[in-house]
Amino acid sequence: MTASQVLALDAMGGDRAPGIVVAGANLAMKRFPDARFRLVGKPDRIGKILRRFPKLANVSEVVPADVVIESDMKPSLALRRGAGSSMKIAIDDVRSGRAAGVVSAGNTGAMMAMAKLVLRTLPGIRRPAIASTYPTLRGQSVMLDLGANIECDADDLVQFAIMGAAFARSVQGLREPTVGLLNVGSEEAKGHGEIRRAAEILKSSSLPLRFHGFIEGNDITEGTVDVVVADGFSGNIALKTFEGTANLYTGFLRATFRRSVFSKLGYLLARPALMALKNRVDPRRYNGGMFLGLNGVAVKSHGGTDARGFANAIGFALDMMTEGFNDKVILDLRNVTDGTIPLGGAATK
Amino acid sequence: MTASQVLALDAMGGDRAPGIVVAGANLAMKRFPDARFRLVGKPDRIGKILRRFPKLANVSEVVPADVVIESDMKPSLALRRGAGSSMKIAIDDVRSGRAAGVVSAGNTGAMMAMAKLVLRTLPGIRRPAIASTYPTLRGQSVMLDLGANIECDADDLVQFAIMGAAFARSVQGLREPTVGLLNVGSEEAKGHGEIRRAAEILKSSSLPLRFHGFIEGNDITEGTVDVVVADGFSGNIALKTFEGTANLYTGFLRATFRRSVFSKLGYLLARPALMALKNRVDPRRYNGGMFLGLNGVAVKSHGGTDARGFANAIGFALDMMTEGFNDKVILDLRNVTDGTIPLGGAATK
Repeated sequence: MTASQVLALDAMGGDRAPGIVVAGANLAMKRFPDARFRLVGKPDRIGKILRRFPKLANVSEVVPADVVIESDMKPSLALRRGAGSSMKIAIDDVRSGRAAGVVSAGNTGAMMAMAKLVLRTLPGIRRPAIASTYPTLRGQSVMLDLGANIECDADDLVQFAIMGAAFARSVQGLREPTVGLLNVGSEEAKGHGEIRRAAEILKSSSLPLRFHGFIEGNDITEGTVDVVVADGFSGNIALKTFEGTANLYTGFLRATFRRSVFSKLGYLLARPALMALKNRVDPRRYNGGMFLGLNGVAVKSHGGTDARGFANAIGFALDMMTEGFNDKVILDLRNVTDGTIPLGGAATK
Repeated sequence: MTASQVLALDAMGGDRAPGIVVAGANLAMKRFPDARFRLVGKPDRIGKILRRFPKLANVSEVVPADVVIESDMKPSLALRRGAGSSMKIAIDDVRSGRAAGVVSAGNTGAMMAMAKLVLRTLPGIRRPAIASTYPTLRGQSVMLDLGANIECDADDLVQFAIMGAAFARSVQGLREPTVGLLNVGSEEAKGHGEIRRAAEILKSSSLPLRFHGFIEGNDITEGTVDVVVADGFSGNIALKTFEGTANLYTGFLRATFRRSVFSKLGYLLARPALMALKNRVDPRRYNGGMFLGLNGVAVKSHGGTDARGFANAIGFALDMMTEGFNDKVILDLRNVTDGTIPLGGAATK
């Protein structure tokens, strides 16, 4: 057991904390038998649930924290008042080296603000980005930035590409992931100046990724590339449009099967197949907003998820920790910055 | 019959022209018995099909054009070589007043370039925008800009809001449509400076619309507002992400029903209900990219559509023509520019 296997969990974050946090850790243990946990929060409430999971209790330490960051608290306020909070103490654990990563299902804005302040960005990384995996027609892909950075220049996009590719290598086990820049057309002349300059840099770099070029919105779910790189504004809009359209279809489909006795019977017959479909697009499978580019691993779980969803967020964090995600980023960043490709200037041909 | 009911059709544009164009006009006639058509293209090819539709032939004039703009031709080249093309002559018809609107299923970029050059923007309108309707959980809404303007400032967004609302009033029959600005969060402090300034202007204006504020990507399909306003970059990405996710679900669903004998039988039983769902999200119902803000009505049909889809694009054009869409835009624009709200400066409170 190495320190890289210790994960701090904000046991009080999320709609159904600490229940789903503790139960999620217990589920995650099956895939990661060497993992150890620091459960940060109210000891009596955590202890009561932990009693049901003796194996988990053996590899866990309960770290007391009295304050809970509210889900609607403004990030600035959370920074001022969050000192004794479960979220802050869990993040501090990563800073001090007691843990290599942190997972929370709490307030997203507060977690990003605290993680940035406490962990700071990796050497050379300008701004952290938020990444998430999602289902495609070909399997699954990862997209970033999903909203941490509203305005991005070419260098930001290149750094997102490096981090996204390192994630795909670490977590999805791809050797040389394909990377696309989200644009309004696939031709080279499309889009604004910054995205075109980012393409130039990526095209002439020798990174462990295959740069596909520009992609369009429909390529996101077609699985045209393993890593979709976007500025945080359009990336956030794409992600939420994806989620909204998924809801639209699920809603329409539900109404469809309720239309008549025949369609209800049809549903019953097709039920196993429909359940397989449901499983394929299950949001719990893709639960985890990865804060990439920080000194340490930080994953934000959806606040409304259950134990299985939280276990998946834990899985992402542990994969990044054990596969040396941050080392990969630092190494790749050097390939782009130490003379080969001058970041901040025009690309050399 | 007034001149506002004459529509010029590029009979040669699209994958299955002129067949679907002529058959589409014939279908549209049922909803618009007073409409008249100018069918621009190769007379022998159009004539052969027109013979099957004697009623349509009665209200149509065939306008000869020998050149066809290729679907992959660059807009700049199309402008130089397009003089005798069916697309150009159909657009010229609107300029000369022979028709009040034009519909083409041909090359989008070429049509936008030609329409801008020939028709020019409405007095006061800075740039034309592309709009489209789409299905939501509550019914249907309209979104713009879908890609004509990559970078937009606050005044552009306000003009898009005016045009989108005028469209919803003209075509969808709404008295006071709700309008939302597509952003990365609904709070007032979200997004970049231009979108926040656009919100300020819209909030303090007295336009015939209800300004909802900021919306997020998932609001697009939830039908939170009647009109979604976005810059052309994120609007295009949202539209294509929507289309891609719809494909993902349709693809998954198709595979689902093929999984077993039971699911195949289930499909058969639920078939009428599933067909109703298919009809509800049928792309042909939403076929038509409206080029708003030009002196005349211009609608771009999807290139791969059929007669029914083309008839719907015609329907959008005729609705805009007969409901005085452009007059509404000019009037509303005056309310924003003539002292009430100074466009180009900060909003007065």
